[in-house]
Amino acid sequence: MAKDISGMLPFFLRHGNISYIENGRLYIIDRRLLPFERRTVECRDALEASAAIRSMVTQGGGPLEVALNALKLEAMHGGDIEAAVRALSGARPTNTTMKRTLEAILSSGEDIESAVDMAFRYYDDAYDAVSDRAEALIEDGDGILTTCFPEHTFMLSVAKAMANGKRIRVYVPETRPYLQGAHLTEPCLREIGAECYLITDGMPAHFMQRGMIQKYMTASDLALSDRTVVNKTGTLSNAIAASYFGIPYYALSMGIDSKRTKSDIEIEYRSGDEIRKIGNLSVAEDDARCIYPCFDMIPSELVRGIVTKEGIL
Amino acid sequence: MAKDISGMLPFFLRHGNISYIENGRLYIIDRRLLPFERRTVECRDALEASAAIRSMVTQGGGPLEVALNALKLEAMHGGDIEAAVRALSGARPTNTTMKRTLEAILSSGEDIESAVDMAFRYYDDAYDAVSDRAEALIEDGDGILTTCFPEHTFMLSVAKAMANGKRIRVYVPETRPYLQGAHLTEPCLREIGAECYLITDGMPAHFMQRGMIQKYMTASDLALSDRTVVNKTGTLSNAIAASYFGIPYYALSMGIDSKRTKSDIEIEYRSGDEIRKIGNLSVAEDDARCIYPCFDMIPSELVRGIVTKEGIL
Repeated sequence: MAKDISGMLPFFLRHGNISYIENGRLYIIDRRLLPFERRTVECRDALEASAAIRSMVTQGGGPLEVALNALKLEAMHGGDIEAAVRALSGARPTNTTMKRTLEAILSSGEDIESAVDMAFRYYDDAYDAVSDRAEALIEDGDGILTTCFPEHTFMLSVAKAMANGKRIRVYVPETRPYLQGAHLTEPCLREIGAECYLITDGMPAHFMQRGMIQKYMTASDLALSDRTVVNKTGTLSNAIAASYFGIPYYALSMGIDSKRTKSDIEIEYRSGDEIRKIGNLSVAEDDARCIYPCFDMIPSELVRGIVTKEGIL
Repeated sequence: MAKDISGMLPFFLRHGNISYIENGRLYIIDRRLLPFERRTVECRDALEASAAIRSMVTQGGGPLEVALNALKLEAMHGGDIEAAVRALSGARPTNTTMKRTLEAILSSGEDIESAVDMAFRYYDDAYDAVSDRAEALIEDGDGILTTCFPEHTFMLSVAKAMANGKRIRVYVPETRPYLQGAHLTEPCLREIGAECYLITDGMPAHFMQRGMIQKYMTASDLALSDRTVVNKTGTLSNAIAASYFGIPYYALSMGIDSKRTKSDIEIEYRSGDEIRKIGNLSVAEDDARCIYPCFDMIPSELVRGIVTKEGIL
């Protein structure tokens, strides 16, 4: 029986505030505009949903939720489910959770709509279980560093730690180029009442050196059974600094991808334009050459544990 | 006999393009607007110059150049030189080169205007000598990471390495919150013809892991005789990552401050507003709490060498 976790979640992370189906269309909340503007991107089918994911309308755990709804929409419209799974799975090559989930639904032979509902319940349960385990790692008085937007599992861990009377502080790097830390993580933490501080991406080691950080916790876009973690660029730098200062790094995971090894990891590169501009503001000249790798691969020696539904690896 | 280094320097770093005296006023090139706009801030005296330095009209090595010109202006106007030295020295508490230089001029008993001219020549010679030593550390094929705006010594090192036929690439973190990497370092390197890439502040470890970086080189706001380095926040994180990957870190210095020890270091904190906004663009909500430490202290074990006029410490 799935526990209702939505009451503990910040607004942006509740079902319906990531994406929803209405009048035969899929609507995705445009995270690129949050927290300043709440707008949706409308998609008629899975192909359009896949394009929206590619253009970063949603990110992190968002694509999984969107893909599940997109599959449901295709089923409602009698669309080509296999083609939909293919299009959606290719939208973010690094994070394989979405791909695995969609393929499992496809091969289950179940009715698509009820299989999708089951998947939603499965993930809600998983968020709940992972955050129970992560919460147990947090101690009263901890300063916790994160990176990017660690979504459901981390937000629930913080909410539960506070509910258990633990006094904690969270340090949130802004996470350039997309500023997910500034735009999503900090507002969400503030909304659930956490003491949180926004810093820039070069500052985590500074606060570690000053003894203000006791744990480093992030989500993970991919976790392998050899304990390698793939997560937003910047995670490696922070994990190395954490290791240098003797601070444990825990990655929260929706499930180990046991079929892959390090050599299978495809690191997504995006356009340098995304570094050069923030919205309409140029932060660099047009002639500047920029390189934008989306993800870091963090070797197992830097990872104290991967927190999953089943336990800590 | 001072060698003329200005021909090798990018535009922004030539005397007269940092600050200049005209018609009894001091004009400071406003680095906060570069490279998009070239405007000056006008100062009537050393007190106004000090206020301009505090509000980051210029930074890095700029304050030293501005302070020397401000002292000259006070002397031209028959102002209170001691009060001027006090006001200027207090403008940036972490970097003590300016303070030491101004106090040396004051206590030399020399005519202020010629003492200032001597100081300018001294630093030009020092830039030349330090960059000769740093250039010798650069090897053909190197990828070099820097941080913030490492100014004269680093630019000259890169220009000399290229003149000596070394093929090098420079990786430039944008350096939030002020974006000196994006606004100053990358345009200057591009201007002198260097192959350079702009990245965000969380990315250096990524490129180190991929074998693209062989040296880490920065300027230093302060260097101590125990080989502790103080430089822009973010330097510590990169120095730790460099050490982890076996990459040497060299700090270029205008002179070791032998009078200070680690416990004397005053780390400047600035307003969180400077993280929350880039120009008029809000990157975070007004209610977000931000912390902005300006400098990192890098312990000697992470520093392969401090490159000075006299040699490598």
